Amino acid sequence: MTGRAFRLRRRPDGVPADEDFELVEEPVPDVGDGEALVRTLLLSVDPANRIWISDMRGYRPPVPLGEVMDGTGIGEVVESRRDDLRAGDLVLGRLGWRELCLLGSDDSATVLPDPLPAPLSAYLGVLGHTGLTAYVGLEIGGPQPGETVVVSAAAGAVGSVVGPLAKARGARAVGIAGGPEKCRRLVEELGFDACVDRHAEDWRDRLDAATPDGVDVDFENVGGEIMDHVLLRLNRGARVVLCGMISQYDQAGAGHAWHGQRAVHQILMQRATMRGFIVSDHADLFPAGREELGRLLAEGRLRSDETIVDGFEQLPAALRRLFTGDHVGKLLVRVAEPTGRAA
Amino acid sequence: MTGRAFRLRRRPDGVPADEDFELVEEPVPDVGDGEALVRTLLLSVDPANRIWISDMRGYRPPVPLGEVMDGTGIGEVVESRRDDLRAGDLVLGRLGWRELCLLGSDDSATVLPDPLPAPLSAYLGVLGHTGLTAYVGLEIGGPQPGETVVVSAAAGAVGSVVGPLAKARGARAVGIAGGPEKCRRLVEELGFDACVDRHAEDWRDRLDAATPDGVDVDFENVGGEIMDHVLLRLNRGARVVLCGMISQYDQAGAGHAWHGQRAVHQILMQRATMRGFIVSDHADLFPAGREELGRLLAEGRLRSDETIVDGFEQLPAALRRLFTGDHVGKLLVRVAEPTGRAA
Repeated sequence: MTGRAFRLRRRPDGVPADEDFELVEEPVPDVGDGEALVRTLLLSVDPANRIWISDMRGYRPPVPLGEVMDGTGIGEVVESRRDDLRAGDLVLGRLGWRELCLLGSDDSATVLPDPLPAPLSAYLGVLGHTGLTAYVGLEIGGPQPGETVVVSAAAGAVGSVVGPLAKARGARAVGIAGGPEKCRRLVEELGFDACVDRHAEDWRDRLDAATPDGVDVDFENVGGEIMDHVLLRLNRGARVVLCGMISQYDQAGAGHAWHGQRAVHQILMQRATMRGFIVSDHADLFPAGREELGRLLAEGRLRSDETIVDGFEQLPAALRRLFTGDHVGKLLVRVAEPTGRAA
Repeated sequence: MTGRAFRLRRRPDGVPADEDFELVEEPVPDVGDGEALVRTLLLSVDPANRIWISDMRGYRPPVPLGEVMDGTGIGEVVESRRDDLRAGDLVLGRLGWRELCLLGSDDSATVLPDPLPAPLSAYLGVLGHTGLTAYVGLEIGGPQPGETVVVSAAAGAVGSVVGPLAKARGARAVGIAGGPEKCRRLVEELGFDACVDRHAEDWRDRLDAATPDGVDVDFENVGGEIMDHVLLRLNRGARVVLCGMISQYDQAGAGHAWHGQRAVHQILMQRATMRGFIVSDHADLFPAGREELGRLLAEGRLRSDETIVDGFEQLPAALRRLFTGDHVGKLLVRVAEPTGRAA
């Protein structure tokens, strides 16, 4: 049996290119004792993927050149010689960019409930690490009723969950997103109080107008100029939750004209706190997070917005879309349809 | 009676120039009920002075154009119609850049002990807001025994206190300062474990070598490229205590080629926390701080390093020295000698 995989050919310079990855078709080893073979169904495409292939000092060692690209996904167990998995199970794990993944005995794989109470894709999105990232970040930022939360990349997977969660805490939710249509959706369909189109020439003025009482919590996903302007509007004692800096990842190498952050002095002036977090450090918060996210989803106060790209071979192009902003909500690549139990 | 004063003529563009201030000789009003007249003896010259004359969004409103420049100093009460002050008292307060200061009934003025257990200048330095800034910042950074504390502008007023305080907490203290002579002093005379000369071409390599176990606490006074390299060496869970960003204050206007902070992403990657503070917010910590600082000073583990510039008219030039690094320890301008009781 063979399966396709993407190996990392070189480290991207700026936005990832197709040529940074090599599509290979490789034999899949036999399933040994304590192993399980999983057919990949969905792969999550996240800003973190870009971090993993950079030689910037990241939060874990980068994917080595020549290795299969790492990625979180959902798959269906084809054959199992692991006690905790059986054929037909739907599992969530670090499957990598491969059609068929041989899980070793130590590889973590979470079996999804059967029957599924929500669409499969939600387990990579609003009910998965994406939704939990929004939840954990807001736990860190701690918005109080009446405070203003600004979230950048608000139409993205995490941002579109941050708004409704902040509203559920009684805060004012202001998004920053690219384009009038995204902004309209966030306000009209997801309940944001306001959304600023960062493509508008006067986006700074619009952000000022949308935050008349300043900013108490900056849920930061973007970095760069957008973050700088939010920093200039911080209130005293504000909290900057550093979840991502997608505008900066492709500039961390040498040789780029680079804006950098120019308003960090406001952290000082406003006696603010900036805290970085990686969601996987906060597993203790997951049960409460899943409960709140599930409840808000069931009540229709949260939506499982997603953009699904079909075809394994589309993975590099899908990753690129994170940088062009050409998607809404959670970005996923569908590799295959489930063949076993219903999904 | 007349006295000289410096009024703010215009907001500095970059490093403050003499022409940004106007030296005037002005009549001093009669002392009214509830007022006191104070002759300025010493004025403290601090990076914060630069913030106060910038139209950058600071931590308090800037000194208005045309007004007397603000400043903290020590003076001698010449005449008092305030119940809490009497002629001859030495007082600490916001006297401003003036030779004679009329204190109103609401102006805070702390009477210094009589007799003085330490040199007068120490009450603006190691036993005053400078030493307390080092103390409060380390309380916020919370270095643990064996951890590495890096402090920039280590030969400056605050930095030279941070090192010994960090050592007293069992941490490794690494300074960054300008020039081999400053570095030598910090290591040999103030007990820093290491000091990196930021003028050396290979200062980055030297900082790496001086922090073999990474950086747990960055006591940041400088910002810019120096801060960026420290950020690149943060350990997981590190704390960045944002005390000052002197390299950035003169660039906050438009039109400067500006580096900005390019390694803020490490706050995310290392799950670090950056917190800004203004010492005056933390008066609750002052009693314990004064006690520790006084004890370490008496034990000879702390030094009251200072550079005293003579002459009221030297104030603008003295302020400029903060940016050229052409001083050691606390920078003060001596305006007059005490005439009343001994000091």
